[in-house]
Amino acid sequence: MPRLEPTRLPELMSSDRAQLDALLASTVVGHVGFVHDGLPVVLPTIVVPWGDRLVMHGSTGSRWMRHIASGAPVAVSIAAVDGVLVARSAFESSLLYRSAVLFGAFAAIEADERLAALDVLTERLLPGRVGELRRPTGRELAATQLLAMPIHEWSLRIFDSWPEDPPEDVAGSAWAGQVRFGAPPVTVVGAPDLRPGIPVPPSAGHISGVH
Amino acid sequence: MPRLEPTRLPELMSSDRAQLDALLASTVVGHVGFVHDGLPVVLPTIVVPWGDRLVMHGSTGSRWMRHIASGAPVAVSIAAVDGVLVARSAFESSLLYRSAVLFGAFAAIEADERLAALDVLTERLLPGRVGELRRPTGRELAATQLLAMPIHEWSLRIFDSWPEDPPEDVAGSAWAGQVRFGAPPVTVVGAPDLRPGIPVPPSAGHISGVH
Repeated sequence: MPRLEPTRLPELMSSDRAQLDALLASTVVGHVGFVHDGLPVVLPTIVVPWGDRLVMHGSTGSRWMRHIASGAPVAVSIAAVDGVLVARSAFESSLLYRSAVLFGAFAAIEADERLAALDVLTERLLPGRVGELRRPTGRELAATQLLAMPIHEWSLRIFDSWPEDPPEDVAGSAWAGQVRFGAPPVTVVGAPDLRPGIPVPPSAGHISGVH
Repeated sequence: MPRLEPTRLPELMSSDRAQLDALLASTVVGHVGFVHDGLPVVLPTIVVPWGDRLVMHGSTGSRWMRHIASGAPVAVSIAAVDGVLVARSAFESSLLYRSAVLFGAFAAIEADERLAALDVLTERLLPGRVGELRRPTGRELAATQLLAMPIHEWSLRIFDSWPEDPPEDVAGSAWAGQVRFGAPPVTVVGAPDLRPGIPVPPSAGHISGVH
């Protein structure tokens, strides 16, 4: 059975890149699944789109990162929960969600693109932060694995629906609707060793879709 | 390399079941990784602890669910993002996160426990909802796969730290601290076919840690 084949509810499937980008703008966490010694392993990590590639990074000291960097086949799962569909039965109730699984393999980012890729990761977490910081040092760059995978094959599923209760349940006394989640509130706290007189930078106020 | 062996930063690792439960109280989404024809597949789905087991469910029409039900080895990845660590360099900046990967295999829940397992799933999404609803029908139960895996082997990682910038960066002009996320606000909307006079039930107001 091909991994991309929708096994159920094909009406929820989408191959729209804009919808994939909207999901990747809602969360930064990707769950990178791979096979090691015949067994499944999943590594949660930050994933960020960069043009037609999905970028991830990690320490050169991580053996799982090196395994992934060697070109092992991966499946990268990404999900955002938008709320709960409250139907008139447990059976019809559900999460409201968007999820995608991308298939492919990561490879090391070429030397001349490593700095730019690092900036893409930083800006995704903290928009504008790169302009507020000193540049990465050679030692920092050398300690960082930067990997990219083509955004080429994926399976995207969006479930955003009203309850579809049978007439006998609609006629009953149970409530039905949606509970939808908004963006979480943020609290900004200065570090214990923060020197006086350094204001909170704009980047800290621009965080979006990181949870 | 055993899948449980911490490959880096072993100080972040925890085998504390209470911390695993706290993570499972923060999110319901598990990314279930398995191997099919030698290739990795990851399936995002709802996972809920039930005593010493992790429960998941799905349609009997899902072939991936049947593959998982057959006892295929799985790795279940769960993550919650608590905020962003804003350090004085991109290198020291990070997500504040908790993540766990559980290893094992799912099996079908025995017939005499299926109704109770379904209630556990419903109550996790909407606390108190079971008491507000009619009972599941035999047909609904028959259409639902209910699987459980022992919570036995897992790797849990918690990163909640202040910046650890070198002295030359602390002496510089960059701000440092944390941006922390609170619980998202919820909006409750009645269904288009909701009959008049049915109030929003208590369960809809008790959603917690579902995003």
